[in-house]
Amino acid sequence: MSILVVGSVAFDDIASPSGSVKHILGGAATYFSLAASYFSPVRVVAVVGEDFGPAEEEVFRKHNIDTRGLERATGKTFAWGGSYTDNLNEAKTTYTDLNVFEKFQPRIPAEYEDTEFLFLANIQPTLQADVRGKMKSVRLTGCDTMNYWIQRTPQELAATLKLVDVLLINDTETKMLAKESNLPRAAQKVMAMGPQALVIKHGEYGATIFFREGAFGIGRHPFRAPALPIDEVKDPTGAGDSFAGGFMGYLASQEELNREVLKRALFYGGVMGSFAVERFGTERLQSLTREEIDARFQVFRELTHLE
Amino acid sequence: MSILVVGSVAFDDIASPSGSVKHILGGAATYFSLAASYFSPVRVVAVVGEDFGPAEEEVFRKHNIDTRGLERATGKTFAWGGSYTDNLNEAKTTYTDLNVFEKFQPRIPAEYEDTEFLFLANIQPTLQADVRGKMKSVRLTGCDTMNYWIQRTPQELAATLKLVDVLLINDTETKMLAKESNLPRAAQKVMAMGPQALVIKHGEYGATIFFREGAFGIGRHPFRAPALPIDEVKDPTGAGDSFAGGFMGYLASQEELNREVLKRALFYGGVMGSFAVERFGTERLQSLTREEIDARFQVFRELTHLE
Repeated sequence: MSILVVGSVAFDDIASPSGSVKHILGGAATYFSLAASYFSPVRVVAVVGEDFGPAEEEVFRKHNIDTRGLERATGKTFAWGGSYTDNLNEAKTTYTDLNVFEKFQPRIPAEYEDTEFLFLANIQPTLQADVRGKMKSVRLTGCDTMNYWIQRTPQELAATLKLVDVLLINDTETKMLAKESNLPRAAQKVMAMGPQALVIKHGEYGATIFFREGAFGIGRHPFRAPALPIDEVKDPTGAGDSFAGGFMGYLASQEELNREVLKRALFYGGVMGSFAVERFGTERLQSLTREEIDARFQVFRELTHLE
Repeated sequence: MSILVVGSVAFDDIASPSGSVKHILGGAATYFSLAASYFSPVRVVAVVGEDFGPAEEEVFRKHNIDTRGLERATGKTFAWGGSYTDNLNEAKTTYTDLNVFEKFQPRIPAEYEDTEFLFLANIQPTLQADVRGKMKSVRLTGCDTMNYWIQRTPQELAATLKLVDVLLINDTETKMLAKESNLPRAAQKVMAMGPQALVIKHGEYGATIFFREGAFGIGRHPFRAPALPIDEVKDPTGAGDSFAGGFMGYLASQEELNREVLKRALFYGGVMGSFAVERFGTERLQSLTREEIDARFQVFRELTHLE
């Protein structure tokens, strides 16, 4: 099945303890698309500026990512600069130039309207809801958001969450959204806002998926997937979007959507996140094979499974 | 096999968002002993004051914990007061009265000298090394420590670590001890100081065990056990010691010590930690059955294992 992702495409300047890079291709939709492309056909809706050229386009094309939804606008592509110090879990933003992204109004090409899997990357919640509204054949909607929207546009976000099947956010965002410091209780409150399942990303500690009672079949418990202990995290940028790409990409490749499939998807999310951080930007995500991905899936299994 | 634990017995005053308790039995050796007692016979070496009476003694006796190593000193038992606010991972100490613990010199009863499993709870490193030196039949030594000793007595601690097989500490302590902010690299540095294996406790995210190359058999990877998402953590005090008790207790109950056994021990550590925090003090640890423990082990398995 195809996946449609709507989100940002950007040029990033990144500095970490491992080095620094300038003007590399980034953005949530980019990381997501590349990660998901190893599992399912991907269609992207985003806006880029005049500085987005054939070299960047080729990155998508090489992974069979459908770019008919990539709108070319007058001006520059969204640009972001960030640095990481010892705490690799948190980027310090040095600048954000929204550029063409500031007035982004997602347009869905007619050829995309039959897409069955939808991922709403982190953009303004009303735009997310609009996109969801236009898609008539969607079987499962995944969604990301951030502290900015939780604090500034709570009502708009609440309306969007009613349309979402699986929300993927981190610990801090979950607690902020639920106004509750205990994570399992916060998870219940967030699911009461709409999502059937909630994936909470714990950074270097992995991720937990909580299910609403009865959602995706039966079962009592949440489920945890690990992150891989990595000797050198070169660049954490895009780890969450790559996680979402692996997660959604795997789901879209499966016939049935039940809890066992969602658990495996959580593992694949962790796998794609672990690859993403090994190199700067999307470098590692551009050069993978499905064999490498499945070998790492096996490593994740060995990391957590008793005999 | 028997386990000997040397550490503190205390009276605690504890306040958390769930309530508060006064003058309840605590201390690392107490939590450890109770948790380990469900798996193996336990012997305790600690010091108590005149306020430690038959009621407290009975807590140990009921779990067949050998208290011949419990020294009675003139004065009061070690007393600690602490409170937890929203961040349940960190206690705010309100007072510490070392009392009889200040001059604690562990004495090993002759009847304990054949003990094969030793756990050095968090006390001054030279005392830990002295105890290890007196035990001639030990097969495996587990050890805990804390930031205080890492910063104040690094040389003494380094000498102790040479005698230790498995060190059990948390993320912050690992990074501080290794002077290295990347956790897998820090783990390698800590193991180079002596331990064959390192258990890093991540609080609500579980724990990871790292193995020195070739230690306890072969294998490439570290191993992660989860913590249970708990709706109401009433009192985190003693969670780490209960973890160590479950871990060491399970090891001492096994014929062979190989990686698979250590992985299962990591799960049992998590299980005992999850019980400990459900009630104040040692209340939950006092009232368990082995059936409840094994049922929760199964929950931990379901929480992490794919079909």
